[in-house]
Amino acid sequence: MNSKLSVLQAARSEYIPKLPKLLKDGKFMLVFEDVVADMASVEEIRKQFPESFGKPLARFVVGEGALSCEPISVGVVLSGGQAPGGHNVIAGLLDALKAANEKSRLIGFLGGPAGIVKGKYKELTPELVAAYRNTGGFDIIGSGRDKIEKIEELEACRNNLENLGVKALVIIGGDDSNTNAALMAEYFTANNYDIRVIGVPKTIDGDMKNEQIETSFGFDTASKTFAELVGNICRDAMSACKYWHFIRLMGRAASHITLEVALQTHPNIAIISEEVEASEWTLSDVVDQIVTGICKRAEVGKNYGIVLIPEGLLEFLADMKGLIAELGKILDTDESYLKTLTDPSDRRQHIDTRLTPASAKVYGSLPDDIQQVLLRRDKHGNLTLSQIETEKLLIDLVTDRIRLMQATGEFKGKFAALNHFFGYEGRCVAPSNFDADYTYTLGYTAALLLRAGLTGYTVSATNLAKPVEEWVMGGVPVASMLTMELRKGKMKPVIKKALVDVNGDVFKAFVQVKDKWLLEDAYVFPGPIQYFGPSQICDATTKTLQLECGDGWCNANISETVPAQ
Amino acid sequence: MNSKLSVLQAARSEYIPKLPKLLKDGKFMLVFEDVVADMASVEEIRKQFPESFGKPLARFVVGEGALSCEPISVGVVLSGGQAPGGHNVIAGLLDALKAANEKSRLIGFLGGPAGIVKGKYKELTPELVAAYRNTGGFDIIGSGRDKIEKIEELEACRNNLENLGVKALVIIGGDDSNTNAALMAEYFTANNYDIRVIGVPKTIDGDMKNEQIETSFGFDTASKTFAELVGNICRDAMSACKYWHFIRLMGRAASHITLEVALQTHPNIAIISEEVEASEWTLSDVVDQIVTGICKRAEVGKNYGIVLIPEGLLEFLADMKGLIAELGKILDTDESYLKTLTDPSDRRQHIDTRLTPASAKVYGSLPDDIQQVLLRRDKHGNLTLSQIETEKLLIDLVTDRIRLMQATGEFKGKFAALNHFFGYEGRCVAPSNFDADYTYTLGYTAALLLRAGLTGYTVSATNLAKPVEEWVMGGVPVASMLTMELRKGKMKPVIKKALVDVNGDVFKAFVQVKDKWLLEDAYVFPGPIQYFGPSQICDATTKTLQLECGDGWCNANISETVPAQ
Repeated sequence: MNSKLSVLQAARSEYIPKLPKLLKDGKFMLVFEDVVADMASVEEIRKQFPESFGKPLARFVVGEGALSCEPISVGVVLSGGQAPGGHNVIAGLLDALKAANEKSRLIGFLGGPAGIVKGKYKELTPELVAAYRNTGGFDIIGSGRDKIEKIEELEACRNNLENLGVKALVIIGGDDSNTNAALMAEYFTANNYDIRVIGVPKTIDGDMKNEQIETSFGFDTASKTFAELVGNICRDAMSACKYWHFIRLMGRAASHITLEVALQTHPNIAIISEEVEASEWTLSDVVDQIVTGICKRAEVGKNYGIVLIPEGLLEFLADMKGLIAELGKILDTDESYLKTLTDPSDRRQHIDTRLTPASAKVYGSLPDDIQQVLLRRDKHGNLTLSQIETEKLLIDLVTDRIRLMQATGEFKGKFAALNHFFGYEGRCVAPSNFDADYTYTLGYTAALLLRAGLTGYTVSATNLAKPVEEWVMGGVPVASMLTMELRKGKMKPVIKKALVDVNGDVFKAFVQVKDKWLLEDAYVFPGPIQYFGPSQICDATTKTLQLECGDGWCNANISETVPAQ
Repeated sequence: MNSKLSVLQAARSEYIPKLPKLLKDGKFMLVFEDVVADMASVEEIRKQFPESFGKPLARFVVGEGALSCEPISVGVVLSGGQAPGGHNVIAGLLDALKAANEKSRLIGFLGGPAGIVKGKYKELTPELVAAYRNTGGFDIIGSGRDKIEKIEELEACRNNLENLGVKALVIIGGDDSNTNAALMAEYFTANNYDIRVIGVPKTIDGDMKNEQIETSFGFDTASKTFAELVGNICRDAMSACKYWHFIRLMGRAASHITLEVALQTHPNIAIISEEVEASEWTLSDVVDQIVTGICKRAEVGKNYGIVLIPEGLLEFLADMKGLIAELGKILDTDESYLKTLTDPSDRRQHIDTRLTPASAKVYGSLPDDIQQVLLRRDKHGNLTLSQIETEKLLIDLVTDRIRLMQATGEFKGKFAALNHFFGYEGRCVAPSNFDADYTYTLGYTAALLLRAGLTGYTVSATNLAKPVEEWVMGGVPVASMLTMELRKGKMKPVIKKALVDVNGDVFKAFVQVKDKWLLEDAYVFPGPIQYFGPSQICDATTKTLQLECGDGWCNANISETVPAQ
């Protein structure tokens, strides 16, 4: 690590992550039980994963088990976007391997899964890893988004792993990466290659979770960092009393982050994509909803407020979904022709003739720059929707609507808006105590599963709303989490993304208070993550985890909070 | 306060701000000494402030002094933009008044100085203030940007203050607000009104400082919050290895925040407006400098990095200064005509004919949207420069340059950029320990100066790089800080803004390391503000303060930092 250390980094490097009691004491054994797979896709998954399908759940319980203590060389790779705590997974993995046998080695593959294919690696020694304990970032070995799917890639991996004497691979990644781990495990087993594969669940967006994996790592730290910033802006809004702040938050497929930040800060309005989709709202409906909120507050003299917007909103809007699908098809055939049209209005005219009337109307209602962005595709052939600053789009549309209402005398308040986007600010934060402990425990558990000889498993973690000592760790067979979904025109085995459940406890908690939050300035200011100090501050978990897996509402501290002095 | 409290808020409300030892012990007396005023404007200032000019510096030293303990009603007002710690100034003021006499009262005027003119106020009782101790924001009484300058406004103030029995007024604000405090003090004294006026120095940008006021409050907390975010993005950049992040930071007149954040995080490039002005760089020169940096890093395989940009950059560029001045004059005469031109290209053509060739060239080089923004003025008749997203402008210009170099084969790396702006995120943060202590002490001292019968003073604070116990508090006569400057065509008495001194120790410290920071990934990750934990973390001051007023380089911990493990 080239960097000098800040005083906080130096102090934080001394933090000893906590482990569940039975792992810490070394008094555990594995027990197995059946798992219920997704019924709809069961036949197809069984066909594609004959070696892996039907494996049981594995869980560590108190006891005296016997895991292999032979020295082993293990490979590790970071896959996908950064999430706080990645380095601690590696630290936990290394510590568990070394605790079993000092001669075990850990090999880090560089730049994501492509590093395995290319055979680019470095050895992760205790000396090297020491400087990365409890730090943010994935810079120890880098990351990447490649998949290992083709036979020649799988064979290149096998070759490189065998040459290095690596008998087991730990893949730290999200739903796609864990699916890829299942595929690799299946391939290696089917071909009698002696290489085990274990996945570690990571998505900062919080969308890789289920009964066996209560939360994915990084979500805690990232959502707390965003909540810090949103809280600061809430306080500014109620101090300055002159701006509506439109804040877009990370989370494309799922709105967990937006919902969690809302529960932590009590904004006036929070749009949740899953509710938008369930209610079949159009872009205009969302604008309506925001304008109605602005009017209601203006009536009580409050010309300021906070609107939270999930990054992925556009893809959940009933009318935009249709438009996006149509544009994708038009670009499939007309992209080269469109590129010959240098005048934007010519392009717009051509698109207009090819869209259905409904979609043409939506397209025409968008500002010029966004019309342009919607005609661009990335190198994978996807529309570059992430380039759309949805918060600015909404400000534009809301401003237009308000101006009309001002002209007719319908709106007598003032309206001025500011925009923010928080994403990159939260991906590489030094992990909170929860994430530091959780990631360390995940890595530690991955080593135990490998030593037990398992393959094709993702580390599982339950009871997480309880103190670390009581966490229940184990492994869930990846194949049991798979289902078949249409991706780019083909049915593919995937791990279903866990979206916000509009009938679940977390969303319900939000619905019960959102009207109150609209009118009152019920803002809460969580402040920055604290690594030191009282445990109720520095060891707290997310509201989402408390509501989903803890003792519910009261503990989650949403309606009833610490009384003011 | 409507809001529920977060656990951190609840814990933080119990923090007892520290006071300098002699204030805490109550064993102090005031001593006075002569002060040297600005020689260039001395005659004019003496003429405009005959009652206030020539007052001595006041300083509290250990001793047994006698301040009035009569009950007094004091008014307080918050002026200008939010800065962390405003509420603690009020808490310190209240505590000092009540400590001297339980019958003393504190009246808060609402919505800034306009609240005094309109007679809008609320009494700030200990019960009310309790909920605001150590919190961010100015929401206890709000703030505003009005000035009290006209005779009828000054008389309305006098009338309202006399009706309330208020004998003293504390104005918490920046350079303009303290100048206004001087004007009010002068007017009240000249007219034999028994109302004292004391100013408290606040600017989050850090530009109200001098020998007597080593830093203005809020700078510490805000710059640490921005450094937290910039550090997170540095770690992301070196993990993902694919983006250049262009980050604009608050601070229009001065680049103190950008410089401080640079010293805390070690970005690859940091543009400092004062250096830009001293070197007479044009927009193209700045683009050159960034492109050169990008090329140098690309040569060593690093297609990522961090560029910090101060919010006010454009106004310091040699060519933009000319353009802005010319546009201002053109709008003075042609604004209504331009509004009749609905086609942007017609407007551009008209502007082109009116600009000098040099300015026309600069104007033509700007993207369309920025050309448009430059033709808009706010209700005060100023160009709306703050609406320009300078970081995006630079990305556009740098991208164009890099594309040309790619076409000629001059640049073989990759370049992709992301933009960020941090301002509102840092204005209402709960004050760091330094700012919590500092603001409380400022308010406490303001009460002592009032009790000593002083008027026309701003609270002074020196020795701030030392522990709180050793801080030296006192008062500096506002008139002694005044100088005459041209503002909107008229010579006006103003407090000179303290810009970054390109010959000073802070900038020199940066210059010594900036080449190293360009190429190496020497990033430091300060992490979020810690309110608890080891004192070297939670009580640390800014690098700027340490370099300007402390024991210099080594203590500021820039080149030599805590050794890695």
